[in-house]
Amino acid sequence: MPKLSHFDADGKAHMVDVSDKPVTARVAVAEAFIKMTATTLALIVAGRADKGDVLGIARIAGIMAAKKTADLIPLCHPLPITKVAIDLTPDDTLPGIRIVATVKTGGQTGVEMEALTAASTAALTVYDMVKAVQKDMEIGGIRVTLKDGGKSGRFENP
Amino acid sequence: MPKLSHFDADGKAHMVDVSDKPVTARVAVAEAFIKMTATTLALIVAGRADKGDVLGIARIAGIMAAKKTADLIPLCHPLPITKVAIDLTPDDTLPGIRIVATVKTGGQTGVEMEALTAASTAALTVYDMVKAVQKDMEIGGIRVTLKDGGKSGRFENP
Amino acid sequence: MPKLSHFDADGKAHMVDVSDKPVTARVAVAEAFIKMTATTLALIVAGRADKGDVLGIARIAGIMAAKKTADLIPLCHPLPITKVAIDLTPDDTLPGIRIVATVKTGGQTGVEMEALTAASTAALTVYDMVKAVQKDMEIGGIRVTLKDGGKSGRFENP
Amino acid sequence: MPKLSHFDADGKAHMVDVSDKPVTARVAVAEAFIKMTATTLALIVAGRADKGDVLGIARIAGIMAAKKTADLIPLCHPLPITKVAIDLTPDDTLPGIRIVATVKTGGQTGVEMEALTAASTAALTVYDMVKAVQKDMEIGGIRVTLKDGGKSGRFENP
Amino acid sequence: MPKLSHFDADGKAHMVDVSDKPVTARVAVAEAFIKMTATTLALIVAGRADKGDVLGIARIAGIMAAKKTADLIPLCHPLPITKVAIDLTPDDTLPGIRIVATVKTGGQTGVEMEALTAASTAALTVYDMVKAVQKDMEIGGIRVTLKDGGKSGRFENP
Amino acid sequence: MPKLSHFDADGKAHMVDVSDKPVTARVAVAEAFIKMTATTLALIVAGRADKGDVLGIARIAGIMAAKKTADLIPLCHPLPITKVAIDLTPDDTLPGIRIVATVKTGGQTGVEMEALTAASTAALTVYDMVKAVQKDMEIGGIRVTLKDGGKSGRFENP
Repeated sequence: MPKLSHFDADGKAHMVDVSDKPVTARVAVAEAFIKMTATTLALIVAGRADKGDVLGIARIAGIMAAKKTADLIPLCHPLPITKVAIDLTPDDTLPGIRIVATVKTGGQTGVEMEALTAASTAALTVYDMVKAVQKDMEIGGIRVTLKDGGKSGRFENP
Repeated sequence: MPKLSHFDADGKAHMVDVSDKPVTARVAVAEAFIKMTATTLALIVAGRADKGDVLGIARIAGIMAAKKTADLIPLCHPLPITKVAIDLTPDDTLPGIRIVATVKTGGQTGVEMEALTAASTAALTVYDMVKAVQKDMEIGGIRVTLKDGGKSGRFENP
Repeated sequence: MPKLSHFDADGKAHMVDVSDKPVTARVAVAEAFIKMTATTLALIVAGRADKGDVLGIARIAGIMAAKKTADLIPLCHPLPITKVAIDLTPDDTLPGIRIVATVKTGGQTGVEMEALTAASTAALTVYDMVKAVQKDMEIGGIRVTLKDGGKSGRFENP
Repeated sequence: MPKLSHFDADGKAHMVDVSDKPVTARVAVAEAFIKMTATTLALIVAGRADKGDVLGIARIAGIMAAKKTADLIPLCHPLPITKVAIDLTPDDTLPGIRIVATVKTGGQTGVEMEALTAASTAALTVYDMVKAVQKDMEIGGIRVTLKDGGKSGRFENP
Repeated sequence: MPKLSHFDADGKAHMVDVSDKPVTARVAVAEAFIKMTATTLALIVAGRADKGDVLGIARIAGIMAAKKTADLIPLCHPLPITKVAIDLTPDDTLPGIRIVATVKTGGQTGVEMEALTAASTAALTVYDMVKAVQKDMEIGGIRVTLKDGGKSGRFENP
Repeated sequence: MPKLSHFDADGKAHMVDVSDKPVTARVAVAEAFIKMTATTLALIVAGRADKGDVLGIARIAGIMAAKKTADLIPLCHPLPITKVAIDLTPDDTLPGIRIVATVKTGGQTGVEMEALTAASTAALTVYDMVKAVQKDMEIGGIRVTLKDGGKSGRFENP
């Protein structure tokens, strides 16, 4: 059976020793979406053009959350993040917002947790700002679509 | 068109004034799941009985994240949380883990963002601890299933 | 000579005991400005209408900073903030941006430090976002203009 | 018109990609002052020699704030700070306290935001500790006086 | 066998529900010491009178740590702390520093964890500031000496 | 008399300049214990095998605290931690729990404060989780037992 690297031989959790891994350029991309009614989506889209920039605020929340990843996820290593970008795109077919977060670092371990944390926090922030008009929105599709730069090579999950 | 309460009349974001709302007992319940292969799920379940308690660590991460909600979600009010409980249940039909987070407060505004943050962070922590064996897991179904105790009354979303 | 309440009789710093003070509705307003060239100001104003919302991001940073006040200022009490609003207004005569932060709480001590922290962090964020085009901007005029709601009564500093 | 680097071509905010910038030794110096009455200043100066070390506590608050810069300023990169020093000097001609913060790093981007955050938080802490005797103090003169070590070269603003 | 209240009937950790407990005035006192050589102690004591105020900085660190308790201890409730005071007293018979931390709140659960966290962080800060001259100092005697104000009544442990 | 490196020539605290120190592989090990009655220890040990994993939660709390060291200890440098492992071992002769924390980094200064913070926070977390059944437990023996990797060479304190 494969082993979970976050546990030692006795099953005790530890922060994995990455001391001997080289510092390499790493990138990860993660996605999320938040589904809502067409009416709620229209309200967000109207706000962008006019006033009440829900997506702009969710973008900032996601960027700031990426920097808090090691504070939230117990066994994550702190990493010197060198880039965070978050796209939030209205999608009428959902209907809702599609979120893509891209994070880079030059470090000894990957940034997929940072990308996932950024994408999910951006989605939670959209929920918070719109919940006064719709409470039964649903967040989903949170997954890593690209990871590159470490020893384990390129991972693509389109 | 309904209004987004997080914006003032000029479309500027603000933390809504709840000064005049009464302090009442409030509760919120939120759900999430993380889908994985049956093999990965078996690895987690084996760990519970034996060694490497993925679900126990995810539970702690979710509880601690609930306390960081106002730090993560820009316009959330800080609230004196009085209870957090998180259930993580293996589900073979998913296959994966189903997560239910319950949060209570005695405050002037609801705790649904705390419950959502707890559930999603618990799911992210499961991802982190298992990603060495499966990278294409997906987190979804993040939604509020119960909210009670404020002026807007009981909301159920089963 | 008047006494500094943050020190005890031996000159040792402490967080002042407010246990016996009543919980009352409190408000504080603080101001700040950031001076820049007319060209830099034009760039910010153009961004508002079009793309690159410097003031919207500074507003969010100020609101989030208000919630971190007790983390930044050593002897501040943690307070359940019930409202934060921040106005950022372009002023051609400065030229620059004028910032007004309003914070409310129902607590046992005032929120003037929260208002000051919100206003100054909003100004610092404007600096950060515009520094690529002008490095010698100056932040000033950080002061409390209104404080009301506690035992010491209303303070106005127009 | 010059461009604001914190926004992409569509005007969306991002944390700028510094992945390909070399790690270099960097330094930044920032200033601030807090103006007060001569009586208030005398109280602070008396405390230094005797008891109630306002300036010592403000210095510690400024140093700790430098480490929180990436948490406060939304688009700041986290940086491995290698030095923080803060001078707080009473100035009878102001009257008040003059603050100079020096921050160093070996990183891929500058530390002027860290120096500005340290200087302004030190000033806010002085305000907090002295506000029981004077509420209309004013903080100003927050600016970068030196930045060196990156691609853009030495910036002096005496 | 008595039960650990931090676990539910199935042995799962949770933040205990204190929603129905009354808000009462609570106080806790905790102690710690740090042992060192007489030479190291002399260095600290000399610094107090002259320059290099180790104890003053440790006091501030302890006060700030009390406010971070709910962030550090997984199942602690966030509480509105209303007072923190920390005494650090040189003791030639140890030799070393004796630390007493007093914390108050008006809340639904006790503040003994806040007092313990304040005392131990003050001790760690002394270690940090003096470690250049002595590395084998030892911190001990961390215990609660007084807790009062809740349902369980007064606890004294002199 | 030896000098305390955390103060400059005028006795003012600063974060020591490590800019010119090389990045080297560093390790530190710290210990702590928490003493309790044999009955309380039996309760913890029973929980491990069965339900209510006090030691597993204390381990996670210690690992997360290591990442917060620079936030807690005023003059500590932020460091890119590359490993944290914490052993918690029941000891009938104490009776109580013995804790050993090991931290590694590749950085410009040592990680003994991280190891001490991890060990002491793990001990505090044990206290928190067991205090419902015993309030007069005592934490002690917090000390550095190994430090290696920097200019000052290997330090052993068995």
